[in-house]
Amino acid sequence: MIEHLVIVGVGSIGASVGMGLRRLGLVRHVTGIGRSEANLKIAQQRGAIDHYQTTINAHINSASVILLTVPMGAMRTVLTEIKPHLNPATIISDGGSTKTSMLADVSAVLGDTRQFVGAHPISGTEKSGAAAAMMDLFQNRRVIITPDANSNSAFVELIENMWRALGAKVERMSCEHHDKVLAATSHLPHMLAYGLVDNLSRFAEVDEVFRYAAGGFRDFTRIASSDPTMWRDICIHNRDALLAALDSYLADMQNIYAAVAAGDAETLQQVFVNAKTTRDHFMA
Amino acid sequence: MIEHLVIVGVGSIGASVGMGLRRLGLVRHVTGIGRSEANLKIAQQRGAIDHYQTTINAHINSASVILLTVPMGAMRTVLTEIKPHLNPATIISDGGSTKTSMLADVSAVLGDTRQFVGAHPISGTEKSGAAAAMMDLFQNRRVIITPDANSNSAFVELIENMWRALGAKVERMSCEHHDKVLAATSHLPHMLAYGLVDNLSRFAEVDEVFRYAAGGFRDFTRIASSDPTMWRDICIHNRDALLAALDSYLADMQNIYAAVAAGDAETLQQVFVNAKTTRDHFMA
Repeated sequence: MIEHLVIVGVGSIGASVGMGLRRLGLVRHVTGIGRSEANLKIAQQRGAIDHYQTTINAHINSASVILLTVPMGAMRTVLTEIKPHLNPATIISDGGSTKTSMLADVSAVLGDTRQFVGAHPISGTEKSGAAAAMMDLFQNRRVIITPDANSNSAFVELIENMWRALGAKVERMSCEHHDKVLAATSHLPHMLAYGLVDNLSRFAEVDEVFRYAAGGFRDFTRIASSDPTMWRDICIHNRDALLAALDSYLADMQNIYAAVAAGDAETLQQVFVNAKTTRDHFMA
Repeated sequence: MIEHLVIVGVGSIGASVGMGLRRLGLVRHVTGIGRSEANLKIAQQRGAIDHYQTTINAHINSASVILLTVPMGAMRTVLTEIKPHLNPATIISDGGSTKTSMLADVSAVLGDTRQFVGAHPISGTEKSGAAAAMMDLFQNRRVIITPDANSNSAFVELIENMWRALGAKVERMSCEHHDKVLAATSHLPHMLAYGLVDNLSRFAEVDEVFRYAAGGFRDFTRIASSDPTMWRDICIHNRDALLAALDSYLADMQNIYAAVAAGDAETLQQVFVNAKTTRDHFMA
């Protein structure tokens, strides 16, 4: 049982956590803190939070857990606002998509990372806000916990148990490893999808591009409807791993370009067969 | 009523046409021609064809319509095999994804394009073969008809009516315009998805990339499970339009790379907001 959960940034992730824990009876009181009162009201109506406020103040001193689910670019500001009111017994955790930068932010603002347990629920949806929250959003989804050398093991276990109670499959990983893998499987595809739709938006035949789009295009571009601010911040905060992934991908695409230009059917066949075999193997 | 329909290449598209027209009672006899007897048997069992054969022979002389739904790279060979048996009253149509190359193949092999009506049903699925055929595959899907100056208007109308009977929304377009629009909305995304999965398959952490993939990655890479031979041929046969689309996209991605490298949040925000706004506008 968590006595007092404070959720800062009551979006689809934060509100789903509140909703799930409240329905399960695993939390006594949930405070939602955010900038948009309209969004906080939706969270309250949907049963995700008991009470809300639009500023961080002394109320957070009684928090057992503070869960930060704001865009990565807002983390440092939020931590700075939390610091003067922070109880040394409070666990700070997050749901952010980049873990090295998060650990650095915590360390820079709080001086050390003893109270912090990094976490990343992999349950992305292109929808955002408390209206998109779902009671079962984390059911059978993976949540990656990224403890470091300073982590308090009791704090880590409490956060892991919280996610398990919400139905998630919990795993541990270093921040660096997390950031490298997520750059490839999540951050890079988002860049490519945003880049494609932006590119096509300047195409003279843009109306027709969407008019004649089939299901494949709809699926391929779905992630380009994700929250721009969240993804802008992920790019900035996972810069090095993302650049390495982009660099490798763009080099491969130049080879595909050259193969198309040369009419090199054999190379294209090899690439496409390998891609299909790989995807069918892992995602049958 | 079509007296005798011959389908060459009884894949998901060809078999769905046969299945639909037979159930609607709009065809007297359907012959399926293909190389794989196993696939042809499935097509027959599923009610897509009445009879099958593995070679093109004099039997096609009685065809009212010959529908070519083989990969683009096989079209010229198939047309060459058809030519000696071709009845001048037979309509030749196709379901191919590249129309300029198809018209050139017909013209090169048959001497002119009078008997030909180019058509492209936009009903892509990453599944292939007669087993993936569906009675209602074309319901509310668009079919683009690409007549040229030599087209026989009665032939064009018959093919248009055939697709309308299958539930499709039929539209006309020039071959060149078709190839430019489809390069952007279909061929380019397939290249990008194949390229990404191929790239990630050589990543040391490939197991983890797929292990931690969320729904977004699954959707984004779905088209990389499409038939490699079909897509290799599309690349070769729509080379110029595809290269133009790839070139424009890769230039934009270099700008995104530069923005990430420079920590240029404003440029990233602009690109992502424009992409989201565009997609939400067209695909709400």
